[in-house]
Amino acid sequence: MSVVIRRPKRVDPSIAGAFLRFGVATVHEAQGRTGLMSPSIRPIYKSAHIAGTAVTVSVPPADNWMIHVAVEQCRTGDVLVVAPTSPCDCGYFGDLLATSLQARGVRGLVIDSGVRDVASLTEMGFPVWSRYVSAQGTVKATLGDVNLPLVCAGALVNPGDVIVADDDGVCVVRQEQAAIVLAACEAREKREAAVRARLAAGELGLDIYEMRETLAARGLTYRDAED
Amino acid sequence: MSVVIRRPKRVDPSIAGAFLRFGVATVHEAQGRTGLMSPSIRPIYKSAHIAGTAVTVSVPPADNWMIHVAVEQCRTGDVLVVAPTSPCDCGYFGDLLATSLQARGVRGLVIDSGVRDVASLTEMGFPVWSRYVSAQGTVKATLGDVNLPLVCAGALVNPGDVIVADDDGVCVVRQEQAAIVLAACEAREKREAAVRARLAAGELGLDIYEMRETLAARGLTYRDAED
Amino acid sequence: MSVVIRRPKRVDPSIAGAFLRFGVATVHEAQGRTGLMSPSIRPIYKSAHIAGTAVTVSVPPADNWMIHVAVEQCRTGDVLVVAPTSPCDCGYFGDLLATSLQARGVRGLVIDSGVRDVASLTEMGFPVWSRYVSAQGTVKATLGDVNLPLVCAGALVNPGDVIVADDDGVCVVRQEQAAIVLAACEAREKREAAVRARLAAGELGLDIYEMRETLAARGLTYRDAED
Amino acid sequence: MSVVIRRPKRVDPSIAGAFLRFGVATVHEAQGRTGLMSPSIRPIYKSAHIAGTAVTVSVPPADNWMIHVAVEQCRTGDVLVVAPTSPCDCGYFGDLLATSLQARGVRGLVIDSGVRDVASLTEMGFPVWSRYVSAQGTVKATLGDVNLPLVCAGALVNPGDVIVADDDGVCVVRQEQAAIVLAACEAREKREAAVRARLAAGELGLDIYEMRETLAARGLTYRDAED
Amino acid sequence: MSVVIRRPKRVDPSIAGAFLRFGVATVHEAQGRTGLMSPSIRPIYKSAHIAGTAVTVSVPPADNWMIHVAVEQCRTGDVLVVAPTSPCDCGYFGDLLATSLQARGVRGLVIDSGVRDVASLTEMGFPVWSRYVSAQGTVKATLGDVNLPLVCAGALVNPGDVIVADDDGVCVVRQEQAAIVLAACEAREKREAAVRARLAAGELGLDIYEMRETLAARGLTYRDAED
Amino acid sequence: MSVVIRRPKRVDPSIAGAFLRFGVATVHEAQGRTGLMSPSIRPIYKSAHIAGTAVTVSVPPADNWMIHVAVEQCRTGDVLVVAPTSPCDCGYFGDLLATSLQARGVRGLVIDSGVRDVASLTEMGFPVWSRYVSAQGTVKATLGDVNLPLVCAGALVNPGDVIVADDDGVCVVRQEQAAIVLAACEAREKREAAVRARLAAGELGLDIYEMRETLAARGLTYRDAED
Repeated sequence: MSVVIRRPKRVDPSIAGAFLRFGVATVHEAQGRTGLMSPSIRPIYKSAHIAGTAVTVSVPPADNWMIHVAVEQCRTGDVLVVAPTSPCDCGYFGDLLATSLQARGVRGLVIDSGVRDVASLTEMGFPVWSRYVSAQGTVKATLGDVNLPLVCAGALVNPGDVIVADDDGVCVVRQEQAAIVLAACEAREKREAAVRARLAAGELGLDIYEMRETLAARGLTYRDAED
Repeated sequence: MSVVIRRPKRVDPSIAGAFLRFGVATVHEAQGRTGLMSPSIRPIYKSAHIAGTAVTVSVPPADNWMIHVAVEQCRTGDVLVVAPTSPCDCGYFGDLLATSLQARGVRGLVIDSGVRDVASLTEMGFPVWSRYVSAQGTVKATLGDVNLPLVCAGALVNPGDVIVADDDGVCVVRQEQAAIVLAACEAREKREAAVRARLAAGELGLDIYEMRETLAARGLTYRDAED
Repeated sequence: MSVVIRRPKRVDPSIAGAFLRFGVATVHEAQGRTGLMSPSIRPIYKSAHIAGTAVTVSVPPADNWMIHVAVEQCRTGDVLVVAPTSPCDCGYFGDLLATSLQARGVRGLVIDSGVRDVASLTEMGFPVWSRYVSAQGTVKATLGDVNLPLVCAGALVNPGDVIVADDDGVCVVRQEQAAIVLAACEAREKREAAVRARLAAGELGLDIYEMRETLAARGLTYRDAED
Repeated sequence: MSVVIRRPKRVDPSIAGAFLRFGVATVHEAQGRTGLMSPSIRPIYKSAHIAGTAVTVSVPPADNWMIHVAVEQCRTGDVLVVAPTSPCDCGYFGDLLATSLQARGVRGLVIDSGVRDVASLTEMGFPVWSRYVSAQGTVKATLGDVNLPLVCAGALVNPGDVIVADDDGVCVVRQEQAAIVLAACEAREKREAAVRARLAAGELGLDIYEMRETLAARGLTYRDAED
Repeated sequence: MSVVIRRPKRVDPSIAGAFLRFGVATVHEAQGRTGLMSPSIRPIYKSAHIAGTAVTVSVPPADNWMIHVAVEQCRTGDVLVVAPTSPCDCGYFGDLLATSLQARGVRGLVIDSGVRDVASLTEMGFPVWSRYVSAQGTVKATLGDVNLPLVCAGALVNPGDVIVADDDGVCVVRQEQAAIVLAACEAREKREAAVRARLAAGELGLDIYEMRETLAARGLTYRDAED
Repeated sequence: MSVVIRRPKRVDPSIAGAFLRFGVATVHEAQGRTGLMSPSIRPIYKSAHIAGTAVTVSVPPADNWMIHVAVEQCRTGDVLVVAPTSPCDCGYFGDLLATSLQARGVRGLVIDSGVRDVASLTEMGFPVWSRYVSAQGTVKATLGDVNLPLVCAGALVNPGDVIVADDDGVCVVRQEQAAIVLAACEAREKREAAVRARLAAGELGLDIYEMRETLAARGLTYRDAED
């Protein structure tokens, strides 16, 4: 019952790549606060920021055979997304697989399990977002699937969806909504830039967002301290 | 029942600031091993070290409205301390709120929940100690309190208490004990400097602290390995 | 019943030190995927890499007395391995103990609990792998053991075993297998270098490792996406 | 953007109910080891066993407003499935909501968060599978969705899917596969009954499943202990 | 610096005992959703329900000496509340201490750590709410405090406060608010009884609480499924 | 490299069985507070209590093949002890394997992972101590070892060691110390019975154990509350 889906429809590379102008927090807000993976998924080094199209891999616990299968399905601009079928902290991925993916133009790895060789991966500049760092090796004994929809760190990922990842975490943008979300990101960024300038100048969010009246209506009271 | 306490009594700024000469471990020891928050609260970047007076904010889970309210209550030398009423891993705080706090002279944020925009916060030099990093947005729908005593990451914090934070974690010093604890820090630091020099020269703690006799009395035995 | 074993047999320093040429992942694989500590044990700073002989310390929760006892048993090339008898997140170890160990030529600390003064430890270049960073102080009231076998972070450690630690975690090599494992590391490294070059040139692991036939035999199928 | 989908297609009640003849382990195996929720979801009392059709509810953290909305969408034979948009340990659900659901013929609740009034729920015989038991109250301030697909405890649930839950946990059966999986459960149960009788009579699985040859081929060796 | 406070002011026994008519969820709601301990604190057996006045004990990790000290300070109607100064999973308390407390009329134990002899405790009918069950023994080497305010499982407890505990968890009622909260519990219970009857008769919460209009105003929309 | 050790030396059955007169807490204390597994290992039903000799099984994550191999090595009075080589929450074991073990006189299972069919296991009276309950199935693809020493839930277990398990957890008694520990259990139980009677009669542990003087010497002070 194991299957590899070849050539899934992907978000247009120019659209997927354009998300690199925005942080994960912005993307997540722009699509109605959806699509975020669990904050347990952390980057192995700081200041990495990627945007690309998902190739999904479902793997058995402690078995990385299907990642080798998935490499062949990757092309320039992809991001590999790997989820085990039950929780596992093994080191599924190291510098050899990263070398292979880098040779194919893959932008990074998101994995709801462990990676190893993180010193080498950092040196190579191959970014990874993972739940664990672990040297624990895996076997090649049991099959899984490539490019079926899967749940990774609590988020549903379809092959070809946009993956955006930075120091704040990882966000998934549905393929069919990519263009709309991109536009919403731009709008949001513009609004925030204006607010940022006013806040830096000392204005209060209470006034900029006109919150005082609503707060009072909800019952907020002020009282001076009795020292 | 939501209330904002204005102008709570704070530790004198010159005393609060003087704690910056000491690490969290020293402060915690100097006040009898009390006041430490859970080690789950970690800095978002390395080498930050702050000391200031607490402004406390009690927030509902996933709702950051009261942080906006609290900004107005902050002044130069304060540290914002935020605790949700039940555990929550959302990203309550980002670069906009940091911009606003920085404009008011606030030294940093301690939050028993999540923050986002950590790349920007790092660039701005606005230090945060948090339990999570998460892009997950929050709403503005439910009230909380500002400047009431609260429990943050297992430690009781009163408004105006001293907060000291560094790479080792976060420590709270009771307002009424601040001067005494400061003196105790100085004394401890002096003692440790002397010991450090002797240890670096190869002397053993067993001898410096005169532990051998007590250890033997408690029953410690030595035996050569039988290879 | 507390005992300190003096002068346990140790792996020859030239063999123990030679492991520094290999990462933890390689060592763990070379000895049949054994000996790894839990990935919860993390380095306090990046890019540290050590190999040395274990001095083991069993400590009560929140009591670091025996670490002071253990220092005397350490010599150049050792690594201190500390495990509490029940889980504990206290800061057992700080810059004073590190100064003392560094004066004796100890290469680092592995502890299944907490450390503090991590800013100083980083500055001193004294590497630590720990489960927690915590300023929480410990007492000196109850005995433990030095240089008995112990379980640290899920791995059995005998005094004198080789400890290898890097950004990927910590691995233990049994004393009696050290020479064999060292040779296996060299062989593995050589094989990997050859594969790495081919992968970088764009060859696929599927072909290099001749996996296609086995995968098909196990039932892997390929299907084109229906867009 | 909040929506309630009315009258979603559901698995036929006679098929959904027929799953009650099988345990969760059997159902999960029968559909190729898929559909299981995280084992963190546990029943509040022992020996409950339900099968029914999913009504899905996506709720904000600490806000149970949408559960009140969802009640109206439930009918006899349904199971309510609730997931917060970010992790939350509040008590979303108690005996009043259970009274309301029981009046509508709902078979139970699956929630990736907390419940309260568990003594009353036990007495009422209203089964709940939850991650937490907590008295912590929730607010009614922010909207969510009813009967959209959601991820609950790591599993994707579509409205109308079959939910089977017992002491082993919770399993989801896709609506379109329900009849096929039901047949596979029956086949599996029959096979297992035959094996169970032989094992009880003292036969070994090694022989029944004819494993000895394969084990030897993979390299398993036997050795007598040297005492 | 260790101290035992004798004869702290306690809530009047008739008021403290009256809380037994109400569950923890009701008490917590009646005092504005405050005072709840973490849901990690669970009863060691089902259907226990107690209300009494707190005697507080601060203990070092893995050291139960102060519990022996605290026994003498207990009287009929008290509940012992124990919190370690740093997290610890040891078995601080067993059937001997329970025998002693039962002889003094103590109603139960709340401990943010472990207990043992749970089979005996169950047989004796001495209820305990704890974070862990563990046989791990403790020492008697280091002092702590009795009847000082402490933080237990995230909640502030003052000696003499009311503790209510049942299958849903543990709640603390401030001494000075006990009478008011008791009255609020009664009012709430009465309201809920009326609602329960209407819900059981098939009325919807949406109508009883008149939520439909507000939900629509906030933007909730309904849509029929397109099958 | 996988091996099955046949007929390991076991503790004499009359000695192993005699431990059934003592709880886990007593055994653990009687051998100097050693040998306890992590309190994360919990019984699947209450009031089970077993003592027997260990047959150890090291299994890959999510692969239960070696348990089938181990069954053949079990005899009357054994307890099966299973540990995965890396953490795993799968359901390794269910009613079929239990049927097979029960037919061979095995007393129970201790597993640092998951089990399933817990309703059936309870009905059969086959006790299990596990970290998880999970329906998640396992594969039969990779080898492990039977009757080699292993670390299970933080405790070292050698084949033939005594395993004692009850509601408090699981304890291991080294084979070579079994007779001595048994005697120590008896002595301890006798002492405790005498103390229990005095405590029940209202005497204080402070007096029975003559603690008052030591406490005062360590600096304990008493103070009356100032109301």
